[in-house]
Order: sequence, then structure tokens, then C-alpha cells
Amino acid sequence: MKPRGLMVIIDGLGDRPLEEFGALTPLEAAVKPNLNRLASEGITGLVDPVAVGVRVGTDVGSLALFGYNPLRVYWGRGPIEAEGVYLELKPGDVAFRANFATVDEDGRIVSRRAGRIRSGTAELAEVLDGMRLDDEAVALFRAATEHRAVLVLRGSRLSPLVTDSDPGQLGEGLKPLTIRARISGAPAAERTALLANEFVRRAGEILAKHPVNIERKRKGLLPANHILLRGAGVRKHMRPLSERFSISCACVVAESTIVGIARMAGFDVFTSERFTANTDTDVEGKMEMALEALKRYDLVVVHYKGTDIVSHDAKPEDKRAFIERIDAAVGKVLERVEGLDLYIGVTSDHSTPCALREHSADPVPVLLWGRDVLRDDVAEFGERACARGGLCRITANGFLLTLLDYLGVTYRYGS
Amino acid sequence: MKPRGLMVIIDGLGDRPLEEFGALTPLEAAVKPNLNRLASEGITGLVDPVAVGVRVGTDVGSLALFGYNPLRVYWGRGPIEAEGVYLELKPGDVAFRANFATVDEDGRIVSRRAGRIRSGTAELAEVLDGMRLDDEAVALFRAATEHRAVLVLRGSRLSPLVTDSDPGQLGEGLKPLTIRARISGAPAAERTALLANEFVRRAGEILAKHPVNIERKRKGLLPANHILLRGAGVRKHMRPLSERFSISCACVVAESTIVGIARMAGFDVFTSERFTANTDTDVEGKMEMALEALKRYDLVVVHYKGTDIVSHDAKPEDKRAFIERIDAAVGKVLERVEGLDLYIGVTSDHSTPCALREHSADPVPVLLWGRDVLRDDVAEFGERACARGGLCRITANGFLLTLLDYLGVTYRYGS
Repeated sequence: MKPRGLMVIIDGLGDRPLEEFGALTPLEAAVKPNLNRLASEGITGLVDPVAVGVRVGTDVGSLALFGYNPLRVYWGRGPIEAEGVYLELKPGDVAFRANFATVDEDGRIVSRRAGRIRSGTAELAEVLDGMRLDDEAVALFRAATEHRAVLVLRGSRLSPLVTDSDPGQLGEGLKPLTIRARISGAPAAERTALLANEFVRRAGEILAKHPVNIERKRKGLLPANHILLRGAGVRKHMRPLSERFSISCACVVAESTIVGIARMAGFDVFTSERFTANTDTDVEGKMEMALEALKRYDLVVVHYKGTDIVSHDAKPEDKRAFIERIDAAVGKVLERVEGLDLYIGVTSDHSTPCALREHSADPVPVLLWGRDVLRDDVAEFGERACARGGLCRITANGFLLTLLDYLGVTYRYGS
Repeated sequence: MKPRGLMVIIDGLGDRPLEEFGALTPLEAAVKPNLNRLASEGITGLVDPVAVGVRVGTDVGSLALFGYNPLRVYWGRGPIEAEGVYLELKPGDVAFRANFATVDEDGRIVSRRAGRIRSGTAELAEVLDGMRLDDEAVALFRAATEHRAVLVLRGSRLSPLVTDSDPGQLGEGLKPLTIRARISGAPAAERTALLANEFVRRAGEILAKHPVNIERKRKGLLPANHILLRGAGVRKHMRPLSERFSISCACVVAESTIVGIARMAGFDVFTSERFTANTDTDVEGKMEMALEALKRYDLVVVHYKGTDIVSHDAKPEDKRAFIERIDAAVGKVLERVEGLDLYIGVTSDHSTPCALREHSADPVPVLLWGRDVLRDDVAEFGERACARGGLCRITANGFLLTLLDYLGVTYRYGS
């Protein structure tokens, strides 16, 4: 029986002590008998996504968990998002991460996420897709998860060296920024900035009149009447993980960023309408689909986004509750692993302390469970308990490679 | 309230078990209720200055604690010492770390530090400063802390690729070495070696007759009648830490090496005549000045040199006593932090085991204390206690970045 690996990624899992939990973190405060069982029967540790003290985004942290060196392969979120909506980039294409947003009559940002719009975005995207910007450039536009979307500029003389229109975290109340070339006087970058600004202007006009937005206003919801752009980039070559280790890989996921990374890494992607990139996802359904996939794939990754979302919203109670639902789903897996030679890794892409409402550089707790791992003394899955674990403190790359090594698919360096 | 950071560097802190302390280290044997309180309320760990098993000097270890990669920015101690005495290097200058030393009539080294001379060195340096070596080269010479000094060769066709005249630790009884080009046949290096040897010869003649030395002999003290040179180097570009993270930084320090590094890193440097780079410094005064600086600076570093000095002199009792004085000063800080959102880091640049009288590669114990750190089970600040700490084992760079991450000034890599 060939060993199989299940890697559970709990986005933004790590946290800091909270007064309301008696100086425990949401994970430490959670009732999680199954994760504790895995920790107790397995080996635990801490993982730094890239390096100690380096704060990362979901894109960079996940690239590292999927085995890549972000310093080599990462250039902006745009190309990952494009891959995530199955929009295949051609050489020369420049991709942007986009947000459906709401601006007021003065053009000031009311909501960077159009009140976290969750439906109707496909229809909105459709009317923007294919917009001709000049004789040599066209805009491709696709809706992604929730308020997220992707803009690809396709044509001649384009460059990713342009700034964002999205003013970021504290941008509400401000006007969107004008996109500019990062290198002044570079013709392709100047041209790309012009085309992107033109797209934003025309998109705003079109969206304002769209039936979806008229309906939203009627219901008292914020209209998605503006597109914020950021993370311009081009596709870099990434050797698929599946090819590098000659393994079959699957990913059960809803969030488009992870879909993009998984696809780039050579994973088959499985999703369902019941799966969201939020806490209302079908937690157990994801795990069931992963178990199903384990019958045919060597490595299966399941990704849960909800923990990160509620951390950004400073809702530690929701974080704890979501962790408890994941724990229950892990319990169902454990009931059904009989006869499988299964290794389970539980990890995260980065920490998102609720009190910070932002990612931090704190390492994340991890565990690795399976037949012949060097079980340590740690009997609890938590930030502090895992600091005493047998894996000590390693990187996300190191964690994946360790899991793959237990699967027996890594190569010997040297003879 | 913006968070502030205080980093206390205790030079050469780490040690090994000593019989006279019942197999404890000087730090473990010290009575240190305040450092223990910080350890107990904070998170602890071990720090390798650069990498596991790599023995470093104060210059390299401190560069790492200030956020630099010594492999990139370090080329000899000379340029750091020059910066430490506010001697601004021009392109082409070659700087040497110098020692006032004592040689006998046969030219053999009696003391590499002129009996740890502590006064009169400014007057001695003055007569050497500005010495013309040939038509195109002049020697600039400045006294630094205690027996330390700086020689800068300024002129045309100079190279840092030359050897030391200082035979090092076990050099007493030997004659100073002739400085040579590290690459034979390289004209600039050959020329630089010639000029440096010429400086040493003439400096010896001048110093022998100097009133300061005549007076020293009269008092039975060793005369500073020779200049030992080492660590030739040129200035490399270093992006100031203050600029990299957009923070204001101050350093409270006496030793010129640390002054140099702090200045290169963009720190404002504060010192006082009461501060020495030895155990007779005003331990509490330094901490008071640091507290004062914390009102205006985001990050304040306080540096204590005494622990390293007494370790080189194999005086564990003095080491323990000096640690206890630092502990008392920490206690005064803790009485006055009310109302500050303060993070305190306690660390060291390297270990200097007393029994070795030399730096070792042993990692140093560290702690990080502040509002929301993941407090671990460690209740004592010591080499072995901290090995069980929640930070696990990290590098000096990682330690600084972690402190900066708590201050909320680091950047997110990725989106």
C-alpha cells in the first residue's frame, strides 16, 4: 500500500494571547480533541513561511507551502489570480488582482470590497470582459471569489512595472490612486498605466448602470461600481511539484488565490458550490472530498480560508468556532483512515492575530501524523505547545519536504 | 500609543558551566530577579549570531543584531572603527583597527593593549594624525575606546588586501608581524603594506619619546610605544535600518565599534563620560538615558561591554556581578514603563566562555517581553532555560526582525 499525504492548510491560523480567552490564543482556547490527538500521536513544531521575522501574504506563504521559493517565482498576485480563474496567461500579458469596490459621487472609496459582495459578480464581470482599450490592447476580466476579480491586459508593449490603484487597508474615504509607471520614462510601463487607468474609468461608467447594481441599491446594498487594481505581474516559470516528485496531487479549495497556486504547482483542483472562501463553507464536505481524492492521489491539500477572514475582522470567537468545526471534520477523517497508509500534516500559510487585524511574522504551529513519525511529548495543537515539538522551528518548504519524505517520494542528494 | 522597542545587548553574555558555580554558567549563577521576570512574562530562545557553529567577533555579531548580513556588508573591522570615531571614510580610503601596545627593547610585544591603557591616548593619537607617508598618501589616526584606535590611509593606489601586524591573542612575547599584500604582486596591495609598515615604524619612534609615555613609565605603567594594526578594510554600502523600516533609532553606547555600527545603521548615538566599554560603566545611567530616548525614538539599543571584557580576562565572578548590576538596572526600567507600550529584547552579540577567554560559537540566550508576546513556560533567563523557549533557535537577524514585527513596522511580503 502506497503511502498518501493529506495536508490541511488553515489560513491565518496563528494568533497571539487574547484577554477574553484568559491569555490564550483562539487555537489554544478551542475545543479540538482531534487535532490534539494528531498532535499527541504525531510530531509537532513551528513553521516560518519564509524566514524568521518575515511577514508574508497568503500568496507568498502558500507558494512556500506548495514547495516554491517565492523569491524566485513570485511576481505580483495578478498572475496567481488569473491562474485561479482558469485564465491562461500568454507571454506579454500583464495580470492584476482586482476588487469590486464601492465609490461615492465624489469618487471616494466607501468600501474596498463593495460590502463584501458575494453574488452577481459573474454578470458584472461579463460586461467588462473583452473591452478594447486601443488598436493593440484588450482587457480580459473575470470574477473570482466574492469581491475578488482579475484583469488581464493583453496586447503589445505592456509591462508589469506599474503601481496599484488600490490604496490598501486604510484606503476607505480616500480616492483610488492613479496607476503610474514604477520607472518613469519607461514607454511600456507608461503605456500600461494609461491603459489600466482607462479601463478603470470606463468600467466605473459601465458598472454604475448595470442591473445587478441597480438591484443592489434597491436592496440597500453597496453597489459594485468601481474596480480597484493591484499586484500587476507576469507569469514566471514554475516547475510543477507533481512533476518534480513524480506524484499525483489534488487540492480541495474555494479561494481563487489558492486555486491559482495549486494549478501552477500541477495540482488537480476540486471545488463545489458548497465551498466558500469564508466561514460559511462546507467544512466537512471539503474533508470528505479530500478523502475521496486520497483514493487516487498521492498528495491532497485541503484549504480553509475562514480563519484568516475572521482574523482580519477581529472576531476571535468566530475564529475559535471555525477551528472547532475543522477539528470535527478532522475527526470524521480519523474514523475513516483504517486501511490507508496516511500521513496528515496540519499547517498554515501565516499568522493573523485578531488584535492586529493583519498578518504578522509569528511562526505557525504545525503537526505531522503518521505511522512512523517520531512522536514527541506534545499533546496539544497550539502555538505554544508546538514550540516544544520535535520538528523544532522550520520553514514552510521544509515542512512540505518532510511530509513528502515520509511519503517516500523525495530524492537522495548525493549517492 | 505607538509601540516602542528597547533592545539590550549584553556583549559576550553566553558562557559554559563552571565548577566554581556548581556547573552553572555566570548568567545561571547570577541573582537576576528582573531578567527572570522578563523571561517568565515573555518569550525566550537561543540566538546564533550568523549560523549554528559559527564563531563571530563583536563587529560581525553586532552587525547581525542591527539587521545586516555580515557576508554582504562586512569587510574588516577598520571601517567600522573609523565610523565609530566619526572619521568619515572617502572612496579609496583603507581603514585599520589599531591597538596601542607595548614592546620591549628587542621589539617583542609585552602587552597587546599597553596594559589596557585608559587615558592619554587622545594626546598620543594627535601626534600621529596627519603623518605624511609619501607624496600621495597621508595617515589619519584617532584614538578610540581605551587601548583602541583607528588608522586610515588616504591617498592614491591603496588596497585593503593586506595582512595584520597584530599577531593576535597569543602574540605576547612575539614580535609584531610585517604587513604584507594578501595577493603577491598586486601593486596597490604591495604599496599599502609598505605604507602601513612605514607608519608603524615611525609611530613607534614618535610614541617612545612622548610625554604621556614618559609619565606612564615613571608611574610604573606600560608605555604605549607601539601601534598594532589589523582588520584592513574599505567602507561598503549599508542601507540604514532606520530608512529600511522608516523608524527612528537611537543607541546608548560607549564602545567605538558599536558606535560605528550604530552610525552606519542610521542610529543617533548617545553616550556620556560616565559610560565606559568596561565594568566600571554607569550601568543604571545607560538605562536611564535609554528610557529618555524611548520618548522620542521607535527603537533604542543599549549596549554593555563589561561582560565580554571580564570573560576575556577569565573573571567569572566579575561577569556574574556585572550581570547582576544590569539586572538591577532592568529593574529600574520596569518601575517606569507604566503607560508605555514597550517591547524589551535582551540579547547578546556572541558567547565568551570565561574558561576559553575567547568567543565561542555557543548560541546566546535571548528574551522578548511585551504586551502580546506568546509567553512560554521558561521562568529564568539562562543559557539552558532559554533553550526550551518558545522562540526556539533563531538567528540574530531573525531576533531583530521579530522585535520589529511586534513594533508593527515590518512589511508584508506578498499580498
